[in-house]
Amino acid sequence: MTSDEVRQAIERALKDALPTRSEHSDALVDALAWSVLGGGKRLRGILVCATALAFGESNLNRAIDLASSIELMHAYSLVHDDLPAMDDADLRRGQSSTHKKFGEAIAILAGDALQALAFEVIVTSNLLSNSQKTSATRMLATRAGWQGMVGGQAWDIDSNRLPENERELEILQGAKTGEMFQAAILFGLIAADVELNDERMKWGKSLGAKLGRAFQMVDDLIDVMQTSSTTGKPENQDQTAGKVTYPGFLGLSTTRERIAIVKKEITQLLREDQLEETLLAETVDQCIDRIA
Amino acid sequence: MTSDEVRQAIERALKDALPTRSEHSDALVDALAWSVLGGGKRLRGILVCATALAFGESNLNRAIDLASSIELMHAYSLVHDDLPAMDDADLRRGQSSTHKKFGEAIAILAGDALQALAFEVIVTSNLLSNSQKTSATRMLATRAGWQGMVGGQAWDIDSNRLPENERELEILQGAKTGEMFQAAILFGLIAADVELNDERMKWGKSLGAKLGRAFQMVDDLIDVMQTSSTTGKPENQDQTAGKVTYPGFLGLSTTRERIAIVKKEITQLLREDQLEETLLAETVDQCIDRIA
Repeated sequence: MTSDEVRQAIERALKDALPTRSEHSDALVDALAWSVLGGGKRLRGILVCATALAFGESNLNRAIDLASSIELMHAYSLVHDDLPAMDDADLRRGQSSTHKKFGEAIAILAGDALQALAFEVIVTSNLLSNSQKTSATRMLATRAGWQGMVGGQAWDIDSNRLPENERELEILQGAKTGEMFQAAILFGLIAADVELNDERMKWGKSLGAKLGRAFQMVDDLIDVMQTSSTTGKPENQDQTAGKVTYPGFLGLSTTRERIAIVKKEITQLLREDQLEETLLAETVDQCIDRIA
Repeated sequence: MTSDEVRQAIERALKDALPTRSEHSDALVDALAWSVLGGGKRLRGILVCATALAFGESNLNRAIDLASSIELMHAYSLVHDDLPAMDDADLRRGQSSTHKKFGEAIAILAGDALQALAFEVIVTSNLLSNSQKTSATRMLATRAGWQGMVGGQAWDIDSNRLPENERELEILQGAKTGEMFQAAILFGLIAADVELNDERMKWGKSLGAKLGRAFQMVDDLIDVMQTSSTTGKPENQDQTAGKVTYPGFLGLSTTRERIAIVKKEITQLLREDQLEETLLAETVDQCIDRIA
């Protein structure tokens, strides 16, 4: 399967997971669709599927359920990150952010509903066993909350406590971005029913963390280098918000060097399992090679 | 066990479930404790435990895990409901609401983290089986999201679409409040390992829905009748916000009649299983008899 075919399958699953009507609130239903279906690379979801394929899962449907889950979790985090009290972003992927389009209250609620839905699609899957559902829910819940994504975001918005060195910036970004990349790789292993012994867990977490780090460094570089017309975000948003970014901290050329090093480490991890010629390797390249 | 003993056990479990420190954000850690441990009747949690006890579960620890989960979910919903973009409430139980104390951004993130934690405590329980974890997560996720609690809240804040009749008000409140009461009863059945056949599910859902309705009617009455010094909330908050309440819609005396009718129906449901002399029956009374 190609990356595009996988992406299209994820898009279909996301559309199926979302409500088309509700007796409670049309605005909420519309805001959910707006927040989830408005584009997006689906990198995390594709990583789930590509990892499952790499480990021999031929039927992608189980992986697609977990890919939807992680994309819903990611979508909720973007909706809340964009809120006026947080990054105050009017644009997301070239469109109005959810609160700009539907108001703050509905945006907060849409995010809340998407987080619940991320868990719902796991436990209502017809294809995963109870053991797989429990593992996946645990992996997601422990990485999405105070220890992971939310914790990283809480640090990121704290202008009184900027990361003081590269190690601190790595911890912050590892929580904010890396934990969900870890979840994506682990979800792929679960979908392929790989035995999650200590060694395999370590491999999966390491791959996810490195990939998240590379992704974030590339994202920061793009933010510095490009204009809003190409990113769909307000230009140089991070820097104007006074946030510490990798290029802001290390400079452009050192950031590029770091990216090259992490990419090499990732290639090494893939080589350990002879996975160089897989969709997973290709997706890794997609994550990193967005800056040619 | 008495209601107070159960409440204390839930308090201990909630304290254990919360972080005491984080390398990411002290404010987030403090806001989580502030939002969860600042009092509260723990009615939903006690209902979980009381239901489990009523159905023969002698060791309460499994029920306590599920009780913590529902109290964390409830705590998150209060933090987000209080936000300026929603009900804009400065006080909660006589204390500053989370956003008043920690700012909006941290309040949004604390709510987000509490939702994730509500799922985490289920799937990391040492006492529940994978089947129980999956059932509980499904029950919670489907009732917390767009179909349930969040859907009801989205309707509730929509000043352009007030409920037009008693039936609509019931649907709104059933989603906003009733779904979590349903989850509480069903959690109790899961903890006691009761076979959830169609009949038992119907019984549990009906009991939870009726209890939620009675609770909301009583809450609305208290809001109308009492001052902020006794409720810990700004006086007459719902009415000033232009929300439709049961007494606002039906008048005080009809609301009281409705409460009496629902209470009779609940007693009937308990009698079907000879549960009149249980902590569950006592907790039902506590939910309803707050207006003497």
